[in-house]
This record gives sequence, structure tokens and C-alpha cells, in this order.
Amino acid sequence: MKTPFPFSAIVGQSAMKQAMILTAVDPGIGGVLVFGDRGTGKSTAVRALAALLPPIRAVESCPVNSPRSADCPEWAELGSKKVVSRPTPVIDLPLGATEDRVVGALDIERALTRGEKAFEPGLLARANRGYLYIDEVNLLEDHIVDLLLDVAQSGENVVEREGLSIRHPARFVLVGSGNPEEGELRPQLLDRFGLSVEVRSPADVAERVEVIKRRDAFETDHAAFMAEYGAEDTKIREAILKARRRVAKIITPPDIIEDCAKLCIALGSDGLRGELTLLRAARALAAYQGKRKLTRAHLRDIAPSALSHRLRRDPLDEAGSGTRVMRVVEDVLG
Amino acid sequence: MKTPFPFSAIVGQSAMKQAMILTAVDPGIGGVLVFGDRGTGKSTAVRALAALLPPIRAVESCPVNSPRSADCPEWAELGSKKVVSRPTPVIDLPLGATEDRVVGALDIERALTRGEKAFEPGLLARANRGYLYIDEVNLLEDHIVDLLLDVAQSGENVVEREGLSIRHPARFVLVGSGNPEEGELRPQLLDRFGLSVEVRSPADVAERVEVIKRRDAFETDHAAFMAEYGAEDTKIREAILKARRRVAKIITPPDIIEDCAKLCIALGSDGLRGELTLLRAARALAAYQGKRKLTRAHLRDIAPSALSHRLRRDPLDEAGSGTRVMRVVEDVLG
Amino acid sequence: MKTPFPFSAIVGQSAMKQAMILTAVDPGIGGVLVFGDRGTGKSTAVRALAALLPPIRAVESCPVNSPRSADCPEWAELGSKKVVSRPTPVIDLPLGATEDRVVGALDIERALTRGEKAFEPGLLARANRGYLYIDEVNLLEDHIVDLLLDVAQSGENVVEREGLSIRHPARFVLVGSGNPEEGELRPQLLDRFGLSVEVRSPADVAERVEVIKRRDAFETDHAAFMAEYGAEDTKIREAILKARRRVAKIITPPDIIEDCAKLCIALGSDGLRGELTLLRAARALAAYQGKRKLTRAHLRDIAPSALSHRLRRDPLDEAGSGTRVMRVVEDVLG
Amino acid sequence: MKTPFPFSAIVGQSAMKQAMILTAVDPGIGGVLVFGDRGTGKSTAVRALAALLPPIRAVESCPVNSPRSADCPEWAELGSKKVVSRPTPVIDLPLGATEDRVVGALDIERALTRGEKAFEPGLLARANRGYLYIDEVNLLEDHIVDLLLDVAQSGENVVEREGLSIRHPARFVLVGSGNPEEGELRPQLLDRFGLSVEVRSPADVAERVEVIKRRDAFETDHAAFMAEYGAEDTKIREAILKARRRVAKIITPPDIIEDCAKLCIALGSDGLRGELTLLRAARALAAYQGKRKLTRAHLRDIAPSALSHRLRRDPLDEAGSGTRVMRVVEDVLG
Amino acid sequence: MKTPFPFSAIVGQSAMKQAMILTAVDPGIGGVLVFGDRGTGKSTAVRALAALLPPIRAVESCPVNSPRSADCPEWAELGSKKVVSRPTPVIDLPLGATEDRVVGALDIERALTRGEKAFEPGLLARANRGYLYIDEVNLLEDHIVDLLLDVAQSGENVVEREGLSIRHPARFVLVGSGNPEEGELRPQLLDRFGLSVEVRSPADVAERVEVIKRRDAFETDHAAFMAEYGAEDTKIREAILKARRRVAKIITPPDIIEDCAKLCIALGSDGLRGELTLLRAARALAAYQGKRKLTRAHLRDIAPSALSHRLRRDPLDEAGSGTRVMRVVEDVLG
Amino acid sequence: MKTPFPFSAIVGQSAMKQAMILTAVDPGIGGVLVFGDRGTGKSTAVRALAALLPPIRAVESCPVNSPRSADCPEWAELGSKKVVSRPTPVIDLPLGATEDRVVGALDIERALTRGEKAFEPGLLARANRGYLYIDEVNLLEDHIVDLLLDVAQSGENVVEREGLSIRHPARFVLVGSGNPEEGELRPQLLDRFGLSVEVRSPADVAERVEVIKRRDAFETDHAAFMAEYGAEDTKIREAILKARRRVAKIITPPDIIEDCAKLCIALGSDGLRGELTLLRAARALAAYQGKRKLTRAHLRDIAPSALSHRLRRDPLDEAGSGTRVMRVVEDVLG
Repeated sequence: MKTPFPFSAIVGQSAMKQAMILTAVDPGIGGVLVFGDRGTGKSTAVRALAALLPPIRAVESCPVNSPRSADCPEWAELGSKKVVSRPTPVIDLPLGATEDRVVGALDIERALTRGEKAFEPGLLARANRGYLYIDEVNLLEDHIVDLLLDVAQSGENVVEREGLSIRHPARFVLVGSGNPEEGELRPQLLDRFGLSVEVRSPADVAERVEVIKRRDAFETDHAAFMAEYGAEDTKIREAILKARRRVAKIITPPDIIEDCAKLCIALGSDGLRGELTLLRAARALAAYQGKRKLTRAHLRDIAPSALSHRLRRDPLDEAGSGTRVMRVVEDVLG
Repeated sequence: MKTPFPFSAIVGQSAMKQAMILTAVDPGIGGVLVFGDRGTGKSTAVRALAALLPPIRAVESCPVNSPRSADCPEWAELGSKKVVSRPTPVIDLPLGATEDRVVGALDIERALTRGEKAFEPGLLARANRGYLYIDEVNLLEDHIVDLLLDVAQSGENVVEREGLSIRHPARFVLVGSGNPEEGELRPQLLDRFGLSVEVRSPADVAERVEVIKRRDAFETDHAAFMAEYGAEDTKIREAILKARRRVAKIITPPDIIEDCAKLCIALGSDGLRGELTLLRAARALAAYQGKRKLTRAHLRDIAPSALSHRLRRDPLDEAGSGTRVMRVVEDVLG
Repeated sequence: MKTPFPFSAIVGQSAMKQAMILTAVDPGIGGVLVFGDRGTGKSTAVRALAALLPPIRAVESCPVNSPRSADCPEWAELGSKKVVSRPTPVIDLPLGATEDRVVGALDIERALTRGEKAFEPGLLARANRGYLYIDEVNLLEDHIVDLLLDVAQSGENVVEREGLSIRHPARFVLVGSGNPEEGELRPQLLDRFGLSVEVRSPADVAERVEVIKRRDAFETDHAAFMAEYGAEDTKIREAILKARRRVAKIITPPDIIEDCAKLCIALGSDGLRGELTLLRAARALAAYQGKRKLTRAHLRDIAPSALSHRLRRDPLDEAGSGTRVMRVVEDVLG
Repeated sequence: MKTPFPFSAIVGQSAMKQAMILTAVDPGIGGVLVFGDRGTGKSTAVRALAALLPPIRAVESCPVNSPRSADCPEWAELGSKKVVSRPTPVIDLPLGATEDRVVGALDIERALTRGEKAFEPGLLARANRGYLYIDEVNLLEDHIVDLLLDVAQSGENVVEREGLSIRHPARFVLVGSGNPEEGELRPQLLDRFGLSVEVRSPADVAERVEVIKRRDAFETDHAAFMAEYGAEDTKIREAILKARRRVAKIITPPDIIEDCAKLCIALGSDGLRGELTLLRAARALAAYQGKRKLTRAHLRDIAPSALSHRLRRDPLDEAGSGTRVMRVVEDVLG
Repeated sequence: MKTPFPFSAIVGQSAMKQAMILTAVDPGIGGVLVFGDRGTGKSTAVRALAALLPPIRAVESCPVNSPRSADCPEWAELGSKKVVSRPTPVIDLPLGATEDRVVGALDIERALTRGEKAFEPGLLARANRGYLYIDEVNLLEDHIVDLLLDVAQSGENVVEREGLSIRHPARFVLVGSGNPEEGELRPQLLDRFGLSVEVRSPADVAERVEVIKRRDAFETDHAAFMAEYGAEDTKIREAILKARRRVAKIITPPDIIEDCAKLCIALGSDGLRGELTLLRAARALAAYQGKRKLTRAHLRDIAPSALSHRLRRDPLDEAGSGTRVMRVVEDVLG
Repeated sequence: MKTPFPFSAIVGQSAMKQAMILTAVDPGIGGVLVFGDRGTGKSTAVRALAALLPPIRAVESCPVNSPRSADCPEWAELGSKKVVSRPTPVIDLPLGATEDRVVGALDIERALTRGEKAFEPGLLARANRGYLYIDEVNLLEDHIVDLLLDVAQSGENVVEREGLSIRHPARFVLVGSGNPEEGELRPQLLDRFGLSVEVRSPADVAERVEVIKRRDAFETDHAAFMAEYGAEDTKIREAILKARRRVAKIITPPDIIEDCAKLCIALGSDGLRGELTLLRAARALAAYQGKRKLTRAHLRDIAPSALSHRLRRDPLDEAGSGTRVMRVVEDVLG
């Protein structure tokens, strides 16, 4: 109903903003987890992201936002096949959403009134080519998180229920926010998110006053405020579009790959998703910065977001996982 | 059935009455939580509020009380489009209410008899532009409270179920009462209420006798009693209406914003909802008092209601949270 | 099937009998809780009450026993509109009763066969203008007790489910019996009953023999027994009818109200329902005794029933709550 | 399928056999609880009872076995109205029985095919004028036991569900068996059974050999065995019939009633069901023995069955409840 | 699909094989419980049993395998009434089977399409005159085990649900296997099985090699293997058929019955099912051995299977229940 | 959507690759359990397997992939009967799959629209002649695992529900992956898998770099990468096809069988599935290696996979089960 708060008007929170921008450059990095206390603007940031993202071209009546009518699912009855510009979809997954609503289900109305077995697409269809946002992801049932991660990874939603056998593309970036004090995700699930960031309330008066002033201006002097930050947002949007074209061509020196492996071995992170994500996100960062070659600086910058949610808890080490990552980065990369 | 007890005839309980009045001046302050023992007149106060509130202008057949038929939801079949005066809606959410009943659901009767997929609006539709009251909110299931807070904040009810994809405005103030001894709200939920107040049984004989006498007169000499306090209620109603027009123009000196931030840092309240609410409620108070400029006195007056439900429990400090807020106010504002 | 045991033939149990009679004089006193061991005649007493109560005048086909067809709910299809005399309804709420059965529900048969959305009234409709009895109320689910107390207090049953939006008068006195050893009511619920009494098995041989003889005569010499006590019951019924006409005119000296407040403060009872009920029940007692003015003696007599279920449990005071009330009455009223 | 084992061929177990016979003389005594280890012939005894009981005269098509068609429920569509002789019904209530099956329910078939709301009677209807047997009653859900005891006591089954409002006579004796090691009944429920008996495996070789021989003869030489004990069973049946006619005329000396009261006070049994049952069962015993007057000997004989399940557990007294009853009987009756 | 492994090719496991053979001689012995670790061939043995059992004569279309169409249930619509030979039914009861599937239920299809209330028989119907096998019986819900034991004992399945009132013969032997480490049966249920045996993995290399060779030959040289053991199986089958004709005529000396009683008293087994089963199984053994008279040797042989599952656990005696039975047999029978 | 990662491009993990190959040579070996931390490429390996497996010949419209239309189930309405080549099916069983979806169910649509009782085959039908893969098998409900193992072993799916009585071939290899830290399988279930292997993240930098490079090349230089490893995959596929023809003719010296038995006795593995699987898998290995005769070397190679999941946990032995198997192999086979 109201224009969302501008992305560039968010005070501080640079790690979160960077992670969101990188998944816009390369959605293959995987989802983003945002940890933090209540009231730290997590939801605001996601709504802001929605407004920042570059628009997509999509068939008007296509349930999965495909760019050409040939790519729309065969089960869809296409009305208008006109290709239109529309905002990158950012879909909210409410906590109480049923599995039916998420993956789609039999269209009961048509089954009852016309005796036809038709598919009624769910939130995953609408999120295709965009973002799926889950507030308090740690409170969602594990099997739903599991399902979301599966689909996010495979890029395809397969529905095998009630005599339906449906599949459609579902390529989206999962963004989950949560307060770790209120319930934890299984390590198995944590590992399947690409990046994680932590947000905190600022402890500095000037920064807090700045936040209050901007929120106040946003409420009381809306038009002027939007004009001021809209330009800033546009710059970021354009930088993302450029980085997308550039990312595949980033040069990766072999010792950088070795650095990735060494870092993960030193951290004792299970499996290999750590280094693969680290590499991929570092390349997206290089592209967003306009660089042509990956360097250790990129790894250093990205390592906390890419690795800190993959550590085993160490009861003898009281440092937070972010600090532990930084310490190891120092040791390994010098 | 019976005229409710007049708002102005409530003995004492000034914090609760103030909080209710301020949300009537600026509904954007957010909901009100009323804590207290049983039998302290919490329900009576909400019913009294209902009678106090200024009436609204609404399309007669509009399910969401919109002021113009163009603002009514498209799914509504409007009968009479006449614009009429009606009391500000104060809707009761009974403890056993199903999610269907709250958000609305498929109209089963029409689905069965006419084969149409129609929407049957819920309590959230009826509460639009008014109040939603939940007795014993701490006994309500978390996911319902969550949902209510989400809708209250966004001002919109989005229903995505059973093949329905419906949205309608749902701007209301949530008023919840509860006895903290019978179950607690998650901090996550507490933080999303704007103000909180505590009510207690009076410990003073004269005050109690006054309460008994007024209740007794209300029961046994109804007409005279209503006449006496009706005039008082009317004054409050008019003060609210004036304050509404004035509130956007209240002047906010920059050091007052700094005071807000300092208070919240000193109290260690998570997130930034504390200072934003404090500022907003203080302005509403200034407006209700007929002032043109915000002062520290307003912050002092509002701080306990705006902040005491946002503190972390401090096991070493036995003082109640209200006392802790007052102490910090003293320290910070002098 | 069998005539119930006569109310006046119940041996002892004067507090319980008094409480029941007073709610017949002034139903506004609220419900009665009867605590006691199994086999102490709690059910017998309620059945006896049913036979004792004065008959009401009601429209023959009215689902809520209204005295005039104009007062019957609009959703009712009235057959016979004749006004007839019928016993005051005493409705049993069985432990396993569903919420549907209690509040009423959609009439499935008519929905299926005639495609109409009709309301099928529940036990609350039938209890209007009478009594609702719940055996082992402490075993009933809290949300049902809650609902019953809400309706009992508001005098109206509001059904908002399955697309129904129905309301009808439901003014009744709730009588609950229970064995506190088998489960307790939440204090929140206790407080909403008007009076509470405790019944015990007599410990005196003569009294027990008297009970056995009367039960035996009731079984073996039914007609004679009923004749003997029927006359007694008729006297009580007439005294109730007289008291009803007199109760609104009882004079209440101001110091008596002060006494009520002092008593409740001394007892530390939460909220103000204690003194309000005490006052009201004392007036009903005065009326039943044929008095014109309320005295301390009435307060003394009523205090245990009106207040003992509103005390907080005091782990340092081993006396039962009845004894504690008596002690404070002595202190405060002398 | 097979003729049941004859009642008189049961070796030992005199208390159980006596209790069953007495409820056949006077069903108003209430139900019988049979406690005991597995394999002690509890089920066998109930099946044997079924064959022993005198036949009843009933309308052939009446769902509640009424003796005259005028007594059949109005909702029953009577086919044959012929009055026939049929065995006293002994109905088994299987552990998994739903409440629907027990109390009766809407006849779904007729509702679906003919659009009529018809009642389909349950086990309670079929048990009218007979016995209802529950194996392992301690494993049944409390609310079903409760319901059964309610109906058994009131003699009427009232069904208020799914738009049905049905009542029919349901006078039966409840016989429950259970192994107290596998779960206990609430004291509240125990108290509502009339009599209780305990059965044990015989510890004496000769008695066990006798049991084995009879069971063996019953299996291998069926006809001869049935002939032998059939005559014995017939004698008991006739004695029951005579006792039924005689029981109302048994003379009860006043000091016997006093004895009942003293016994129960000495035992500290809650409520008054103890003495009422004791008196009633003692009279049935006197009638079965052909006596005209009740004596202390009858009380002595019946006290353990009538009272031992009504004692509070005494943690300091290790004797079983039967022994405690006997000790008190000795003290009180000399 | 594949011919099962031959019964006579099972290496060792003599107690299990004997128990199965005896229930084939006299199904009245009751069910068999097979305890043992995983992978000890419990399922293989039951499948082998199925192939070993003598065929029965049954009406082709009869749902309960009756030998004459007159014996088929009246609710069955018989197609072919030809009497044919068919294998003794051995029905598998899968762990997840619903009660509907076990006892039979309303035929929903016919109810929906033809508006008829027809019965769809369950597994109990198909098991009539045969075996019902439950793998991991200790994991089955107690109420289903209960129901199965009830039907097995009464020989009749009574269905009283959904307006059906159906009965049909269901005489079968229950065979349950289970690993006591994974959950235990209630003693109440254990006692209702006739015999119990324990199987273990052989600890002897030669025996294990023999098992492997036979399984290997069965897989790789199927035809030759089946030919070799088929003859052996036929001999057992014929011995069973002879024993069936002989078992009723076995002479039972009186001191043998006394021995049974003494054994059970010495073992302290609850109830009398122990001695009754012991006697019956010993007679079946005598018949299978071609003897005319029961001797102590038969008791000795059968006692462990008939009694060891009926002992109370003795925390002071670490010997297994089989050993305890053998010790007592030695003491009592010499 | 994307070609899966090539099987031969998986770095290391030789035990897992061997186990998968052996079940392709002889599906009778039973399922494979893959244990390991998250992110170790378990899912990748299964998808790779799918691409590696030799194609099968199957009737085009046959729901169970039968090679000839005569072998298709009678309930299938065959459209095209053409025999075509298709990939060996590898079916994914998602964690949330209902039993209906797994085993098949009544086709509700046809039941509703055409009034026919038709069978809608489930995942087990589609897996016939192929593989069924379950990710995180330890999180699946036990009764589903049970059911899958039953069907996998019998090779047949029997559906007895909702009036359906359907059977169809369902011969497949079950592949389950799981992280033992997140929940364990019951020993009973473990034992029914043929082989188990453990996978770990490589701890060696070079190996990790190699993994990253291959994954990177697979993503960024797809075509060249597939060409490189495609040839390698083809070789394995052909070796499997040859081994299949050879496996039945492998010579098994008698002392090898004895070795199997000795190994299992020494390990104390319950039951005999250990040695049977060991023998069978060793033969498949010999065949895959092109050998004609089974030797101790084959047993040594296979023993850890065939036996380590069948050991009882030994609290005094801290070595993992694989180490314990190797130690015993050393002791027994020298």
C-alpha cells in the first residue's frame, strides 16, 4: 500500500546489504539468513530490497513469470501472452502457510464444479525468478524449510500429490530472518543457505538518532524523502545489472581456490558447500566492484557471511562464530 | 444489549485511560497491552472506550467500513452505497476464534449452492478503522497473535488460501488484556505492541467504595448515572478529534530525538521500536494537551507505557520494569 | 422419568441450599460453584432445584423461552406462538458436549437437503431464563468454561462461525459442581462465579441415618414422601417469588458498602468482583428474609460464599479459605 | 456360536457369583466391578451370567426391548409388534467402541440416501433391561465410563448431537472387569459402581484340578456337561425370580440402618452411596435367601463388596481394602 | 511370486517348528509368539508354514472360506458356489493396517454409487480357517492386538460400526513375531497367546554354513532344492492330518492333570490359561507322535512353550523364563 | 533440468561408488545406506548414479516399466504397447511423501467423476526395475521405512485399502542417505539394508581443491566437462552389463562360505543376513572385476560395507564399527 523504505536509506547494516546485493548479482549463491534481535529492521530491509531489484520481463498471464510463453508451464491456461515489465517478485511466506499453499495443490473449485483435475500454483510458482522471504524462519516447521531449500537448490518444484504430477521452474533466492534466541535451525538446514549475516541495534546515539530521523522523515515528509534516496537506489540497481553481465568472466587464480579449501579445512566446516559458496560469492563481489580478477581481499570480505553458519559449535571457544572465522582468515590468508 | 459503563466514570487507572486516548488520537502508535489481575475492570474499560470513540463515516454495506464506495474491496457485493455515520468499530476476538473467522475464508454456502468461490470476510475486515480487542491475549495461540500484529502493522489483510487471493484494508488498533501470571507473551510479540499499561485493584477503602457506588448506581439508577458521565465522555471525544487535526504539526526539537535514543540505549531495549513509539506517543500526548511543541515532560510521561514491555528481564534487579524505566528516565532526562 | 428428590428433603447442606435460593431471587449474582467429595448429593441438589423453581411464561415454540413472540430471535421459525407456563429450564451440560452443541451451529440437515444456511440452537439457547448445570466443571475444558462464563455475564450468545452471524439472549445462572481433588479451575475462572459453597458427608450418625431413611422412603414409599415435602417446597418457591419483587427496594446504608470494601482489602482479594457480589447477594438474602434494610448480619452470612473462592492460596496459612474469610469477617465487622 | 460355560460350574469365586446374582434380583443396586489377574475367568463368568438370567418379554422389533409397543421410543419404526420371549440382553462393550456406537448416532445412510434425520440406536439401547459388560474397564477412556455410569444411574439415554434430540430408556447393570495393575479408575468413578469383588487364581491343587477337569469336560464332553450343570443353573434362575417378587417386602429394623451409617463413618467412606448400596444389596441377599427380615448377618456378608472400593487409600495401613472393611465390620457390628 | 523356502529345510529351531505343527494339529491351542533377534528367519518360517499346511475345501466365492455355501455369511453375494481345494490361508497383517482393514468396513464405493450399505470384509474374514501372521507384533497398537486376540478366542468377528451390524466366523491361529528389545507386550496380552518360542542365531559354524548353503541352493538351484525338501514337507503334512483325527481320543490320566496344576502353582503363573494350554498342547504332541496316552514326557516337552510367557518377572532371579520353567519342571515332575 | 554431475567425476568416495556399482550388478544384494555429514555429495552421487545406469527396455505406457505388455499389471489401461528404451528409473522419495503417494491409492478423480474404483500407482510402481532414493532416511517415519524394506525384499507391492486389492511388481534397490547425528534407524531396519558406506569431507587440501575445480568446471564449462567424464562413465556402464551376465557363474569354494560364517560369529552379528549379503556382494564384486572364482580378497573388500551396520554397539570399544569389522577380518581371515 505504502512505498517501502528505500534500501539506501538503511543506516549501517553493511553486511546484510552486501549479502542481498550479491544474491541479486548471482542468485546461484543460494539463500541469505539474517539473524538478529527483534526490531532491528530485518523486515524493513527485505521490503526495501523488493523495491531496489531490477524489473524482469515476463509473460503477463504466466503463473511462473516466464520471459516467453513457450517457457510457461503446459498446465497453465495462458490468457494474455503479452510480454511486460514487472518488478522482481519478492514473495512473503507467512508462518502459518500450509504445504498446499507453498507448493500448489489441486484446484478444488474446478474439481468440484467442472470435474477437472487442475493445478493451482502456490507461492513457489510466484517466487520464480525472484525472492522468497520468510520472517522468523526458525519458527517454521522443519519439513517446510527442507522443502523450500530443496526447491531453491534444484530450481524446480515437483508436485506429486492427489493424482497430480506437475513440475514447474522455481528459481528463487530464499531470504530468511530469525532471532536465534527463539529457536534454532538444524545444522543440516543452516548449511544449505548460501550466506548468513547478523544485524544488531546500533549502540551509538548519533547512529540511532539518524535512524529515528530517517524513519520520521519517511513517515512525515514522504515525497521529499523518497526523492532523496530514490537516486541512490537507482545507482545500486544499475551496478547490479552491470555486475550480472560481468560475473561469468571474473578470472580466478588457482591459489585462490586453494585458499578457499585451506580456510574451510582450518575451520573444520563439514562438507564442501562452504568453499563453493565462498568462491561464488567472492566472484559476485568482484563483479559488483567492477574488478576483473578475484583476490584474497574478496575472500576476506566474504568469508564471515559464507562460512560462519557452517561451523560446529565449539563449547571451549566462547567467541562468536563470526569472530572465529575472522581469526582463521587471519591465520590462513595472513 | 446494555449501554456500556461510561469511560469517564472509571475510577483511577489513569495510565490505561491515557494509552487508550492516545491511540485514538494517532492509531499509528500501535496496539495497547493491558496487564493486570482479574476483576480490575479491563473488559469494562474496553467496552467504555467503544462508546467514547468518535463515530466514523462509512458506506452502509461495505464490509470494511470504507468512507467511499470506491474504497470498498472489489470482491464485496455492495448493497446500499449510502454513506452513514456509525460508531468506531470495536471488535471482540473471542479466545476460541479460528483463523478462518479472524482473517476470513471461503464462503462455503455459496461454494456449495452456487458453485462460486466467494470470500467471506472475517473479524479483521470488521475491525478496519477501529479497534480489535482480545481478552487474555496471553492465552491466544502465538501464531494468531503473530498474524494480528502483522496485519495491524501493515494495515492490510492478505488471504491466500483455498484458492482465494484476497486483500483488503485492515487498519485497526489492537488492544489486548492479560494476566501475566497465567502465561506470557514471547518478547518478539511484546515488542510489537505500541504501549503497555498495568492496572491494579485499588488498595484504598475510599477509592474502592467509590468504585462500588458507581457500579451500583450504574446498575440501579442507570439513566441518571449515564446522564452524569455522558457529558464528561463527550468532552474527551471532542478533545480527541481536535488532537487528531493537530498532531501532524507538533514541533519536535532535535534534542528530544536524542533524548529518545539515549533513553533506549540506557535501558538496553532491543531494536528501535522503543524510540519510534516513544516519539510518536509523546507527540499524540502533546496534541491532546493542546500543545504545539514536544518537551521532555511529554517523554517522561509516556516513557513507562512506551518502553517497559521492551526491557529484557534482569534477574539481578528486582524492581518491576515500570520502576526501572522511571529510574533511567530520571538519570537520562534529569 | 422419576420425580426428583424434593429440595426441602435434603438433610443439612444449608450453605448450598441458600446459595441456590439466592440466585433464584437475583440471577445477576452470577453462577454457583459447589465443591465437595463424591456422593454428597451435589447432583441430587441440582435436580431438586429444578423442581423447586417457579415456572416461567414462554412462547411455546420459542427456542429461547421468550415471554413474547416479539422477543424470540428473528432466525427462529415460530410454530405455535401461544404463551404457556413451563418449568424454569435447568439444562445439563454433559462433560463431552462439543462447542457446537453448547453454542449452536449450522443446521447441517437443512444445509444439505434444502441448501439453506439455518441456525440450530444449542444448550445455551435452551438455558435462557434458567439454569445451566455442569457436573465436574473442573474437568471441562477451560475454553468451554470461559465461553460459558462470558455468555453468562453478557447475557447474550454470539455465534460467528461457518458463515453464521447469530445472536440470541442467553441469561442463565451457571451451577457447577466439582471435586477439587480431581483438578482445579484457573483462578481467573473461579473469580467469575458469583458464589461458592462446600458440601461434605455428614459425620454424625443421626444425620446420616436421617439421610438414608429419606432416600429409602423416597425409593420405597414415593407418593407419601413427595406429598410430605412437596408442601415445604411450595413455601420456598413462594418466598422466592416475593423476594424477587422486593430485592430492588432493599435499603443499603453507606457504611455497609464501606464494610464490603474493607473486608475485601483485608482479605487481599484481587479485583472488585468480590465486594460487588457480596453486596448483591446480601441484598437478595435480606429480601428472602423479608427485610427492608441491609445489615452487617447479612454480610456475615454471605461473606464465605461470596469471597472464599477469590482468595489467593496462602502457603503459610493452613486454614481453609472459608475459615480465613470467617476470621477476617470477625476482625473487620467485629 | 458355542453354548457358554454354565454359571454353576464355575469353581469357587463365591463373592463374584453372589454379586452377580444380587444385581439380577435388584438391578437398582448398580453395577459390579470385578477385579482380578488375567486368566481368572472373569469373561467366562459374564458369559455364564448371560445364560443364567431369566428371559424377558419384549416387542420383537423394539430397539430397546420394551415389553409393550406403547413403551417403545417414538423414533423407532416398529416392524413386528409381537411380544416375544428373549434372553436378558448381555451386551459387550468393546474397548475401541466410539461414543457414537455406544449412545447411538445419526443414521448416515438414511441421511444420505433419503435426506432424513433418523436415529440409529447404539449399544445402550440394546442393553436396556439387561447387562452391559466392559472387559478391562480401567483401560476405557474416562469420559466413556462417566457417560455409562450417568446413563446407568438415570436409566435414560439422552442424545443431543448432530441436530438429534433423542431420549430412550436405558436401564441396565454395568459389569466391568479389570486388572488394577494395568491402570486405575478415578475414585469418582469407582464410587459409582454398586458392588466390587476380587477374583484370584486358586492356590490349591485340588481346586485347580477341578477347574481343569470341568473346562476339559466342557470342551470334550459338551452335551453331558451341559446337562449336568443346566439343572443347577435353572435352580438359581428360579431363586432369582422368587427373590425379585420378595425384595420389596423385606423388613428393615431401624438399628440396621444405624449399623449401616456407623459402618460407613468408621470406614471414613466419602459420601452416602456406601450405606445406601449396603442396605439395598443386603435386602436383595435376604430375599435371595428366602428371608423376610434384614439382619446384621446380611450386612456382614455384603459389606466387603459394597464398601471396599469406596475407601480412601491409607498409606499407613498395608492391609487390602477388603481386610480393612472386615476389621471395621468386626469392630462396629461385634 | 516365488515358491517359499521349504519348512523342513529350516536348520534347527525345533521349538518353533514344533509349536507351529501343534497349532496345525489343534488350532484351539491358541496363537504362537515367536521371539527372537532380527534375521533369525522368523518370517521365512511363517511363509514356509503356509506351504506346509494341508489344503482346505472351500466355496470358491465365499469371503470366509466356508466349506459349504450354507455356511457362508448371509451378507456375502456368492458368485461361484463350487467347492474347491485351496491352500490353508496364511494372511499377513501389515503393521500399518487400519482397524477397518482388519475387521472389515462399510463398502464406500457401493455406498456412494449405489446407495447401499454393504460390508467389505477385512483380513479377519480372509484368515478364517487359517493363520494370521503379524510381524513385530510388539510394535502393533495394543487395541488392535486386543481385538485380534478377542476374535481369535471367540472364533467370531463382530462388526458394530457405521450402522453395520455384521458377524462372521473368524477361526484362525494368530502367529506373532517380535524382538522383545524393541517393545514389550502387556502381560495381559502375552497370556492370551497359547505358546511362545524363542529363536536365536546359531552360534556354531557348521550350523551356520548349513544355513547359508541351503539358502544359497534355494536361490541358485531352486528346482532341485525344492524337490529334495518337498518330500520331507509332504511327510509332515500327512502326519498333521493323521494327528488331527487322533487328538480327540488321546487318553489323559488324572495324575497328569494334577501335574499340570502343580506345575502352574509352583511357577506362580496367574490365572488358569497356563495349565489348560499345557494340557491341550501336550495332547496334540502325543497325537502327532502317534501315541494314544498322555505322559509326563509330553508335559516336559511342552511346558517351556506353554508356560514361559506367563511368568511374572522376578527381579531376583536372573535366569530367563525358559530356564525357570525347566527348573520347576524338574522339581515338580522329577 | 540440468545434466547431472558425472559419476566418474566424483573425487574419492570409493566405497560408496563400489556399493552402488555392485547393486547395479546384482540388485538382490539389497539397498545401500550412505552415512555422512552434510555437504559431502551424497545427493550428487545418487543423481550421478541415475545417469550411469544402463537403460532398460520397457512397454511405453506400462506403469511399472515391464519389458512386455503381458507383464504389465492387469489394472493398467495400456495406451501405447510399444517397447522402448528408457533410463533405469531412479525415483526420489521426498521426506513428506504420504503412504498413499508411496504405495498408490484409489484414483479419487475417477471415483468421483466416473464412479469407478481405479488404482493410481505410486512411487513404488515407478521405481520397479530401478532405484528408490531417500534423502535423510533417518528422518522418515519408521512405518514408511518398514514398508519400503518389505516391498524391496518381496519384490511386490500389495495394496489392500479402501476396497482396493491390488498387487504389482516392485523390484528396486533402496538407496538411503542420512546423517547419523540427526536421528538413528532402528537396528531392525538397519539390518535389512544390504550394504552401508560412510562418506566424509576430504581433509586433504589437494583433494578439496580438485573437488572445487571439478564442480566449478561443471558449472562454468559444462559441455567440455561432460565430454571428458562421459567416456569414463560409459566404461563403467559396460563393465556392469558384463558383470550381470557373469555373476551367476562365479565359483564359490566351500571354505569361503565357512569364512563368511566365522566372520559373522566373531563379530556377533545378529541373524544370518550378514553372511548371506557378504557372500552375494562378494560374488558381484568378483564378477565386476572379471574374475571367475570367489576369494578371500573379495570378502575382505566387501566385509566393511556388508557387516558394519549389523554390529551391536559396544560401549567398551570406542572404535567405529568399520574399524571393528576390519580388526575381525584380520583375525579371522589372516
